[in-house]
Amino acid sequence: MKSDLPRLMAAHNLDALVVLGPDGLGAANTAFTYFTGATHVTNGTIVVKRAGEQVQTTLVHNPMERDEAAKTGMQLVSIANYKMQDIVRQMHGDRLAARVEFMRRLFADLGVSGHVGFYGVCAVGPTFAFLDALSREEFIDVVTEYENDVISQARKTKDAQEVALIRQACRLTEGVIGQTRDFLRAHPVKDETLVKTDGTPLTIGDVKAFIRREEAAAGLDDPGCIFSIGRDAGVPHSSGNPTDPIRLGQTIVFDIFPRLIGSYYADITRTWCLGHASDEVLQAYDVVMKVHDTLAAAFNTTRMSYEFQEQTCDIFEAAGHRTIRQDLALANGFVHSLGHGFGLDVHEPPSMSLKGMRPDEPLEIGTIITNEPGLYYPDKGWGIRVEDDYWCNPTGQFECLTEFDRDLVIPMPG
Amino acid sequence: MKSDLPRLMAAHNLDALVVLGPDGLGAANTAFTYFTGATHVTNGTIVVKRAGEQVQTTLVHNPMERDEAAKTGMQLVSIANYKMQDIVRQMHGDRLAARVEFMRRLFADLGVSGHVGFYGVCAVGPTFAFLDALSREEFIDVVTEYENDVISQARKTKDAQEVALIRQACRLTEGVIGQTRDFLRAHPVKDETLVKTDGTPLTIGDVKAFIRREEAAAGLDDPGCIFSIGRDAGVPHSSGNPTDPIRLGQTIVFDIFPRLIGSYYADITRTWCLGHASDEVLQAYDVVMKVHDTLAAAFNTTRMSYEFQEQTCDIFEAAGHRTIRQDLALANGFVHSLGHGFGLDVHEPPSMSLKGMRPDEPLEIGTIITNEPGLYYPDKGWGIRVEDDYWCNPTGQFECLTEFDRDLVIPMPG
Repeated sequence: MKSDLPRLMAAHNLDALVVLGPDGLGAANTAFTYFTGATHVTNGTIVVKRAGEQVQTTLVHNPMERDEAAKTGMQLVSIANYKMQDIVRQMHGDRLAARVEFMRRLFADLGVSGHVGFYGVCAVGPTFAFLDALSREEFIDVVTEYENDVISQARKTKDAQEVALIRQACRLTEGVIGQTRDFLRAHPVKDETLVKTDGTPLTIGDVKAFIRREEAAAGLDDPGCIFSIGRDAGVPHSSGNPTDPIRLGQTIVFDIFPRLIGSYYADITRTWCLGHASDEVLQAYDVVMKVHDTLAAAFNTTRMSYEFQEQTCDIFEAAGHRTIRQDLALANGFVHSLGHGFGLDVHEPPSMSLKGMRPDEPLEIGTIITNEPGLYYPDKGWGIRVEDDYWCNPTGQFECLTEFDRDLVIPMPG
Repeated sequence: MKSDLPRLMAAHNLDALVVLGPDGLGAANTAFTYFTGATHVTNGTIVVKRAGEQVQTTLVHNPMERDEAAKTGMQLVSIANYKMQDIVRQMHGDRLAARVEFMRRLFADLGVSGHVGFYGVCAVGPTFAFLDALSREEFIDVVTEYENDVISQARKTKDAQEVALIRQACRLTEGVIGQTRDFLRAHPVKDETLVKTDGTPLTIGDVKAFIRREEAAAGLDDPGCIFSIGRDAGVPHSSGNPTDPIRLGQTIVFDIFPRLIGSYYADITRTWCLGHASDEVLQAYDVVMKVHDTLAAAFNTTRMSYEFQEQTCDIFEAAGHRTIRQDLALANGFVHSLGHGFGLDVHEPPSMSLKGMRPDEPLEIGTIITNEPGLYYPDKGWGIRVEDDYWCNPTGQFECLTEFDRDLVIPMPG
């Protein structure tokens, strides 16, 4: 969590962090919004400086965005103070050299020197060229890390305020899930297909439009969701074919992962069969829920995260299903990871994938992860995934943040 | 436009382009979505290879996303073919070395060698570490460009399909602007303030919630908008204070920039005064519209883009207003650029800012830019901006893509 930053910076031998902007509009630069919160600061640079056991956080902002910058509570510096046009002129029109010179002056003013780590989500080419030029200068040592960098490590555990926001995102998301189920059940059935008032079939596209509207009304940002039926439900990241009709008895995989506006995500999946389900699906659902419940009870902070993936594969294989550890290209069986961390991004460390694919690490107090086992048989026309969110609370217990029921078969009225 | 890629790649002496994923969910990695379109491909690498006067485009995708990958129409390679777990093992658990080795094998299979440019919007630290490692290898020459890279240059002009999507985004956005105006006018007025049915004031927060719902219903992604009133309207990027009541006679700056889901933006601003406006604001509005209309008529492909900013400052200064070219930290007067390109990002080249701050370049056939002069006097409690979108069509004429009326004073019923 953020309060770990002084310790982490010391452990990584860093004197300062620099998070490059912009935030990319729509808060895609989450290393940036980790410090600013959900404000309309689109342009800026964040400097975090270690000073003993404290950190000092400065936002260098565009003067047009001074009101938004003030909302962050950070120490502010207007970029206008640096008269970029003059610096460009002094550098004979070389804007890359001017940006390096700007950093030199800024760091001198802020007292930043030594080992400086760089972060953010930015355009690859310009950023590489900039850091490459900066690393040839003497006034700081540019530090970048391929994995497990300071900000990722801080973000891997959530503080009380972050957990509260994620809980809020879960509650609002469950509201939308419930409204969606009610919406489906409100449609009459003709020839095993849900129909609209004009007699035409209700489609995936209709349902997704409904979901988008309900998300907006709830104050949730919608990055798209997965609402796929039948064969498409058997392909984990198939988002669903908009023209497909909603038919009874088919598996529907509904994976919804919105966030509070510019802020924290929820990530929840339910599998539904409207009216009835086949015995094959009912049996497979029991296996998925057995894995789900077994792993939820098994989560702890002593085992490496990949061990939970191993345990998941053990159970599925014992039940006669093939798994991704047997074949990375597997299409029929359990074909993905058990879960993943999330927060300001929908996928964050830690991961629970196969050993070696990610840094080996235990889950920790403050971790928030998904638990989302699934079985996929596209050739048989079905798929199942059930996903809940868990938080490792300060006592080391894994609390389920998701409250929505896990019923597979949704009875249709009448 | 995309059809320029073979020519641009040849001019930049590039044999191939690589766009690194992921797309960041919510289509923030627009160099990626430029090739994939609005699909749910969250994980992947795009390789564009020059072969004579053609380009070959390959998407290396996660097998879970095979259905979404197929929608792109690109040549597909499943990352599962490369058995990453085996490569990691061969590299003794060094995942960075494994990623480099994966690229070596991929490029060998695709026949990629020589000068390879790298693009995308990605995490700074891991990407710098990766490209740094890759640039020490012999199998390709890593090319990055600080400005004016091949993909930015291609994107600077839009083809017919892109223009059609931006027109569609403009129409839908104007629908929301009109609904918002109707929504305001539907509220009764008490003591010069709009009130809700419960008698409490209508607030900026209420209006923004309405806008979000209407955008969702229209199929638009909402990255937030600016709806600010009075003094806040005088700070260009103040997004508005949610608790502020909507009062008659105050300037409202409404800057709305949604996009088609995962696709192209519109960017439109209107300034409204409900009921009535002061003489000072009416006169300033005339100046802003004079600049707006003069510049719209002046746009051409022969002058450098910064010359339009110079001309804008000339007119404002002649009318007695201070401008940003006199003071980069200016808060009262004309304080920003005349306009900017947009497309898959809401801010794209070309810019129309001061000379030297961006690459000097003319507008071109296919350019889409905003024209958004404004005047800001926060201390007097008002701000004005009027923004329309223009496309330089194949005959070199600048067509206005925005149709919504530019009326300042909105009469209230009764």
